[in-house]
Amino acid sequence: MKLASLKSGRDGRLVVVSDDLRLCADASAIAPTLQAALDDWSAVEPWLREMSAKVETGYAAVQPFQEADTVSPLPRAFQWADGSAYVNHVELVRRARGATMPDSFWTDPLMYQGASDGFLAPHEPIPLADEAWGADFEAEIAVIVDEVPLGASREEALAAIRLVTLVNDVSLRGLIPAELGKGFGFLQSKPASAFAPVAVTPDALGAAWKDGKLHGALRVTLNGRPFGQADAGVDMTFDFGTLIAHVAKTRSLCAGSIIGSGTVSNRDADGGPGRPVAEGGLGYSCIAEVRMVETILRGGPETPFLQVGDRVGIEMRDADGKSIFGAIQQTVVGERHAAAAA
Amino acid sequence: MKLASLKSGRDGRLVVVSDDLRLCADASAIAPTLQAALDDWSAVEPWLREMSAKVETGYAAVQPFQEADTVSPLPRAFQWADGSAYVNHVELVRRARGATMPDSFWTDPLMYQGASDGFLAPHEPIPLADEAWGADFEAEIAVIVDEVPLGASREEALAAIRLVTLVNDVSLRGLIPAELGKGFGFLQSKPASAFAPVAVTPDALGAAWKDGKLHGALRVTLNGRPFGQADAGVDMTFDFGTLIAHVAKTRSLCAGSIIGSGTVSNRDADGGPGRPVAEGGLGYSCIAEVRMVETILRGGPETPFLQVGDRVGIEMRDADGKSIFGAIQQTVVGERHAAAAA
Repeated sequence: MKLASLKSGRDGRLVVVSDDLRLCADASAIAPTLQAALDDWSAVEPWLREMSAKVETGYAAVQPFQEADTVSPLPRAFQWADGSAYVNHVELVRRARGATMPDSFWTDPLMYQGASDGFLAPHEPIPLADEAWGADFEAEIAVIVDEVPLGASREEALAAIRLVTLVNDVSLRGLIPAELGKGFGFLQSKPASAFAPVAVTPDALGAAWKDGKLHGALRVTLNGRPFGQADAGVDMTFDFGTLIAHVAKTRSLCAGSIIGSGTVSNRDADGGPGRPVAEGGLGYSCIAEVRMVETILRGGPETPFLQVGDRVGIEMRDADGKSIFGAIQQTVVGERHAAAAA
Repeated sequence: MKLASLKSGRDGRLVVVSDDLRLCADASAIAPTLQAALDDWSAVEPWLREMSAKVETGYAAVQPFQEADTVSPLPRAFQWADGSAYVNHVELVRRARGATMPDSFWTDPLMYQGASDGFLAPHEPIPLADEAWGADFEAEIAVIVDEVPLGASREEALAAIRLVTLVNDVSLRGLIPAELGKGFGFLQSKPASAFAPVAVTPDALGAAWKDGKLHGALRVTLNGRPFGQADAGVDMTFDFGTLIAHVAKTRSLCAGSIIGSGTVSNRDADGGPGRPVAEGGLGYSCIAEVRMVETILRGGPETPFLQVGDRVGIEMRDADGKSIFGAIQQTVVGERHAAAAA
């Protein structure tokens, strides 16, 4: 089953989307918003699945599904906690600045509490007041959970996953060192993220959902050119069950909490730091990583961070080449422009 | 005007509370929940104020207001960002472990993104799986804001404050050093916070609300004995307008976002680290602070962190001795007990 939220009010209007992303049916009579559906999932899910079956078989009142009409599946959420499950990425970052990574990072997940009070729409511009802030995208996988009890095990956590989607965790690299140096984590350096147009139940992902991970190439483009195609199921040191259980160690999670994987990152086949797509490699899911590789190989970064006008695309396709979640497609705009458009 | 949320569903049921906290009137026909009221504040506020006036004059259908029937004003919120505005507290923490504090901490607010997906009720037990985690309370002031635009000034931020309340920001001191050492801020070490039973509009606070700060002694008790009475309006280096604007530097804030002051802390009149209430001092708003003072004065901490069975009280009274927000009253319970009670 695939779900999306169309633009409407603060929390969007819930629709059921066809598997091929061409049609959708209004589900607001079942649950007005995705958060409302998640708040009462066991009662609501059967009705949504019935509607989904009718959409596929032509028995539901449908309309064309336009990704540009969507907001993030949860336009605002009660929790967004993001991991760094691809430890390869973390190791690269440290290596680029000559620091070693503690061994514990391979066994103890690194996660942060992110801002969840307002997400950008999948095709909404990224407002950037100052290019010197070093804006970057981070292409990630995210899951949306039902209630998770305090102290939940990995298995209990896995069973609570209701939906899977993609996320662009926008980061301001220029603000990160000073902010992390203060010791309390990210605040200004992690502005609003954007999610893919569609969220998908794990069963609808088939073999791509396995062992608490989403398998498949995460296709990232920068200004229309391939930038990354790392496999989200490879080199993910901590699966989503482990990440969720990490959060739940000292508190329960509310239905509708979103847990992120961190930037998807694969090692090169030869164990090297990874080559660009243009050189036959898997590329990168963020600009910081190519800059690290450039620094390791040639002594300094060459690829600039995002400039006003840059376009970022994030998508995953199935074995038949069809988009699973729709595409995140964002353009960087100056803050004044963003304010005027709002 | 004073508002509260009575136990009902996930988000409580909105009531208007009398100034003396003795009566309340159901406001759910105006807005079902406090979040709903904040989402449409300009339209809803006049109706709530009319009801508030009727409660005071005896023209509304009222019921007795019982603090024990309340949940936190926002039982879950879209954002909880907490500051460390009482830099005295931060300096003491550092001094206790022999570290100096960067000068920038006096001009650049230290804040963290907290978990907002589920808050404890004002009188709800604090679940604690392991006393070795070093559970502590932190008595703070919090404000609830309307929408705040990206890049808002301090003045714009101040104008967006809709409600003021108190918070117990529960902290697990034993988990903090290792977690902050990982570099991404608090996650496991900040479990669910609890807020005071009542949230109050700034105008209803009279002279106690001035310059973006709440003035008055924050009365903290531990097992019924006075533990702290620091004045929230004193030694607050950053007012709420400055804290909110700090968060809004790179993103807008959604209506219903909650911003905390950090642990209230006053210097002693003689500039010393502060004496216990029993010795005629203003005491402390968290256990960590008295332990720091003990360490500075006598070489090591003496007061233990919270044990199962300990009772914490947090309250502020007006000039006539009447409770302004009602009292946070929580007992620490073992996690198993908490699960059984849920």
